[in-house]
Amino acid sequence: MSKGGKTRQRIVAEAATLFNERGFEGGSMTDLMKATGLEKGGIYRHFSSKEALALAAFDFAWQTATQVHMHDLDLLPNSVDKLKRLIANLVERRPSVPGGCPLLNTAIDADDGNRRLRERALRALRQWQDVLSEIIKGGLERKEIRSDVDPKKLATLIIGSLEGALMVSRLERNRDALLGAQAHLGSYLDSEVKATQCKKS
Amino acid sequence: MSKGGKTRQRIVAEAATLFNERGFEGGSMTDLMKATGLEKGGIYRHFSSKEALALAAFDFAWQTATQVHMHDLDLLPNSVDKLKRLIANLVERRPSVPGGCPLLNTAIDADDGNRRLRERALRALRQWQDVLSEIIKGGLERKEIRSDVDPKKLATLIIGSLEGALMVSRLERNRDALLGAQAHLGSYLDSEVKATQCKKS
Repeated sequence: MSKGGKTRQRIVAEAATLFNERGFEGGSMTDLMKATGLEKGGIYRHFSSKEALALAAFDFAWQTATQVHMHDLDLLPNSVDKLKRLIANLVERRPSVPGGCPLLNTAIDADDGNRRLRERALRALRQWQDVLSEIIKGGLERKEIRSDVDPKKLATLIIGSLEGALMVSRLERNRDALLGAQAHLGSYLDSEVKATQCKKS
Repeated sequence: MSKGGKTRQRIVAEAATLFNERGFEGGSMTDLMKATGLEKGGIYRHFSSKEALALAAFDFAWQTATQVHMHDLDLLPNSVDKLKRLIANLVERRPSVPGGCPLLNTAIDADDGNRRLRERALRALRQWQDVLSEIIKGGLERKEIRSDVDPKKLATLIIGSLEGALMVSRLERNRDALLGAQAHLGSYLDSEVKATQCKKS
């Protein structure tokens, strides 16, 4: 990678932490200059505006969060096990960009704020709903999942439950709410989602 | 109420909307001057700092949200019905301060930001957990609720599920996620929380 490319990458990584922790309005260019050791001109050489930088920072933060969510999912053949692992990844694995879930932060920050950041958060939500829905659809096809389960509804329930629990856990500074959501969703998947196995005669 | 008291109240109400929609950093004193038609000096006559105003605005927003949450709860004698009504109030009733749930917004805004706003959000969470826990404890005493239900855990599960669904609903600009959470929690309360009534012989 060129020196310019490396500098750009470093700005994006620092901006991802800054905006994820402080929000778009709360994260100032002065903070970013301090974090990167660059002058304002050195930052704006790579980004046309604070908004352009915030969009790149969100994409970076979401991409790294997605890697955490998807960790080791491919190793599991069963769809219900995949959903449980995805939930466990969210509850147990530390994200590499500090400040909590970029989707939750940006959704709340931008819902009455920056329009393009809001669109980016909505796109991330859709992407996550699609990932979960595809896992659930695979489970329906292989009859691992009960035929009355709606993929989009179950995906949204899992996402909402985890994001809300994350908000509570970050506020309480303990993992009780996240562990409670994990236990609840695990029982729900076992009792209401997983297809009952036919006994071999 | 004195003229000064009325002016103070008007500033708080305008600031509640501004900070709930834009966050503490995103809501500027310039915006507030526009909204209230007051000069900066006219605002600072009533509040020693932007932080002091934001704290009063949060208290106002949370108080009005709580009134919405608690609407008609007293009319219902049964604890499980009370929980369902509380969930329905959150899903169906429009809050009087625009911008979504003040607890969710302030928790996300302040978790890496203003320390005193963060404390205020934590206090609001505790207060809400206590309200739900008391309803659940009443249900345990009257044997309306199964004896293995943990009041704090169930309270936190309900709060987290609704707050996360609210985030998704506000981002998608439809009520699907909230209605999904309401249906899920309703089934869960019926199947796993409500005590099985003994049949009269």
